[in-house]
Amino acid sequence: MSQTPTGVTAPRGFAAAGIAAGIKSTAGSKDLALVVNRGPAFASAGVFTSNRVVAAPVTLTRAHLAKTGLKAVILNSGGANACTGGPGLADAEATAAKVSALLGCEPDEVGVCSTGMIGVRLPLDALMTGAEAAAAALANTPGAGADAAEAIRTTDTVSKTHVSMHGGGWTIGAMAKGAGMLAPGLATMLCVLTTDALVDDATARRALAKAVRTTFNRTDSDGCMSTNDSVILLASGASGIEPEETEFTEALRSACYDLARQLIADAEGASHDIEIRVVGASSEEAGEAVARAVSRSNLFKTAVFGNDPNWGRILSEVGTVPESLAPYDPDELDVSINGVMVCRGGGVGEDRALVDMTPREVRVLIDLKAGSEEVAVWTNDLTHDYVHENSAYSS
Amino acid sequence: MSQTPTGVTAPRGFAAAGIAAGIKSTAGSKDLALVVNRGPAFASAGVFTSNRVVAAPVTLTRAHLAKTGLKAVILNSGGANACTGGPGLADAEATAAKVSALLGCEPDEVGVCSTGMIGVRLPLDALMTGAEAAAAALANTPGAGADAAEAIRTTDTVSKTHVSMHGGGWTIGAMAKGAGMLAPGLATMLCVLTTDALVDDATARRALAKAVRTTFNRTDSDGCMSTNDSVILLASGASGIEPEETEFTEALRSACYDLARQLIADAEGASHDIEIRVVGASSEEAGEAVARAVSRSNLFKTAVFGNDPNWGRILSEVGTVPESLAPYDPDELDVSINGVMVCRGGGVGEDRALVDMTPREVRVLIDLKAGSEEVAVWTNDLTHDYVHENSAYSS
Repeated sequence: MSQTPTGVTAPRGFAAAGIAAGIKSTAGSKDLALVVNRGPAFASAGVFTSNRVVAAPVTLTRAHLAKTGLKAVILNSGGANACTGGPGLADAEATAAKVSALLGCEPDEVGVCSTGMIGVRLPLDALMTGAEAAAAALANTPGAGADAAEAIRTTDTVSKTHVSMHGGGWTIGAMAKGAGMLAPGLATMLCVLTTDALVDDATARRALAKAVRTTFNRTDSDGCMSTNDSVILLASGASGIEPEETEFTEALRSACYDLARQLIADAEGASHDIEIRVVGASSEEAGEAVARAVSRSNLFKTAVFGNDPNWGRILSEVGTVPESLAPYDPDELDVSINGVMVCRGGGVGEDRALVDMTPREVRVLIDLKAGSEEVAVWTNDLTHDYVHENSAYSS
Repeated sequence: MSQTPTGVTAPRGFAAAGIAAGIKSTAGSKDLALVVNRGPAFASAGVFTSNRVVAAPVTLTRAHLAKTGLKAVILNSGGANACTGGPGLADAEATAAKVSALLGCEPDEVGVCSTGMIGVRLPLDALMTGAEAAAAALANTPGAGADAAEAIRTTDTVSKTHVSMHGGGWTIGAMAKGAGMLAPGLATMLCVLTTDALVDDATARRALAKAVRTTFNRTDSDGCMSTNDSVILLASGASGIEPEETEFTEALRSACYDLARQLIADAEGASHDIEIRVVGASSEEAGEAVARAVSRSNLFKTAVFGNDPNWGRILSEVGTVPESLAPYDPDELDVSINGVMVCRGGGVGEDRALVDMTPREVRVLIDLKAGSEEVAVWTNDLTHDYVHENSAYSS
């Protein structure tokens, strides 16, 4: 077969499956994915939501990573298994135990990820039967990677995958989902990254943490932080190549950036992808605070939806960031939208009518003139379709 | 005449006017208001936006209050005079000078408030001519108070006024505007409160600060903080009655609460008014942080628009508040919506289908079980009409 490798099955040493287990209410929809590291090495790492209200699968997977590391991950859409208390945790444990029995590994070596509505128990029978079907369907084909990516979709209109080949002949593959509840710490999302690079657990952990910090964590669609966000890295070592840590980290960062942009591009109802780039910041924290404030402004985001370069709504958000966090002089601020400096020195700049807002990508550049740090956050506009999708989601 | 007194002209010692000066693009719309304290006493106080990017009239009025106190306030809709630099400040100064000449007081005794689009100069000629017409129209009739309230509307669909009579025979009157960009510190709004109580400047300042803190500052429609928010209190002493400070403060708080509720009830495109009440908080700050987080969740607010009691979106927001700010145990949280405890002990409670979401008012009660403090924040749902109004506003 000459089919292009797709997602998590692209690197050597991995098998995957995506099947319809009957968890989603829409019959026949794929809703259960399994990703297995077949070695020879078994390094792993994970980054999870910083929400204090965490879903049962997050609690379980965190504990498994801390104890033994992961050899496999099972992921379901159709229910978040969040706010389900002790019974929900027992469901996640039963799922990991079932997968371990099917694969012949320890329960502690299985990660579990769930996505969907909060506050509803998962149908455990469907999960158990589905896990058997998924294990039976495991393959290292491109189609298996595609099936897995398909199975974790919720309101995503397309599957998100990534494949990149690196220097000495090692590969990163990945799949992700996320379309709403996208906010840092993390964007609301599930992501599994696979690689046949030979790295140890400590390297995997450091690299993943760095990669996520400036990519997924700077993706802010609607300011809402999830209870289920999980980014998991599995490394098989099957290429036999041990990359430099800096090279590996950069490759991982690049993969995460690609996936983060795919998430924003498919964000619920969005009609514009918006980059908020802050330059001249006194510190990275200052730049991020300013970019984040603008990225969360409903007024700015509705203006972009209306193709209106309403820079006053940008400045009014910049002004909400405390001086202790981001020093700048309000009378020095410059703001450009799609290359036109509509605000100069805190006041009226070029004619706003010169700004072309029709491209899908809108680039906002804010110069704080208070230092030399630069930070970019990606967000999207606030549209009728966002309101529609999220007012109708669970009813 | 038996007409009920309306707004700022209800207390003795005040005159007002509201006229069409040609500032708004819609011809014939009232857009300039004048409120004058005719004494015998002239106490005043103001509370302003905490945004670092402040409009010229805010800068000017703050300085005038600090220097001499105010005898009159001129307010315009049709333009915010924000982000207009030195020329914008000169416009505000010219306006105050013109009013002082017309009234026979000092320029420093005139406050200026503006509301409308940011980043556009005001038409100074129209303002000057309009100030003359407003001064000529000054009257202490109910209709004059109504005209003034009408003239400060922007996207407000109705005028907001308040009148209350108190104990020994003194009165509070008020007018306010605000429909979008409603967020604390302050809600985006202009408000002028008048009273014939006899209070000194220091009492007026303390009472206004306390009254605003738990009313306007706990009104959070869209999380966007304005550059122009101003709440101004003028006291004429014309009743000859000097109320106890606690009585005066409570009366002022009650007036501000009434107006804040009117703002929420008329928030852009809203179809539900939502109270987020947090009980069992370890501190007022903790309760406010939790209530604020929920009130800013687009996902929660779109769910309410869809009459969906999606409590998972409440819990996921509660979880974003840092433990250092609001200690609580996620497994202890109770959440009720319109009287039905849909979440008990952090997990599934009563059937969400029991919640009646059809009333305009939605009451969310969150019990943190971490103390005895209680805080309520008012917000509203996120609707198609909000997106429509704010994507079309300036284009």
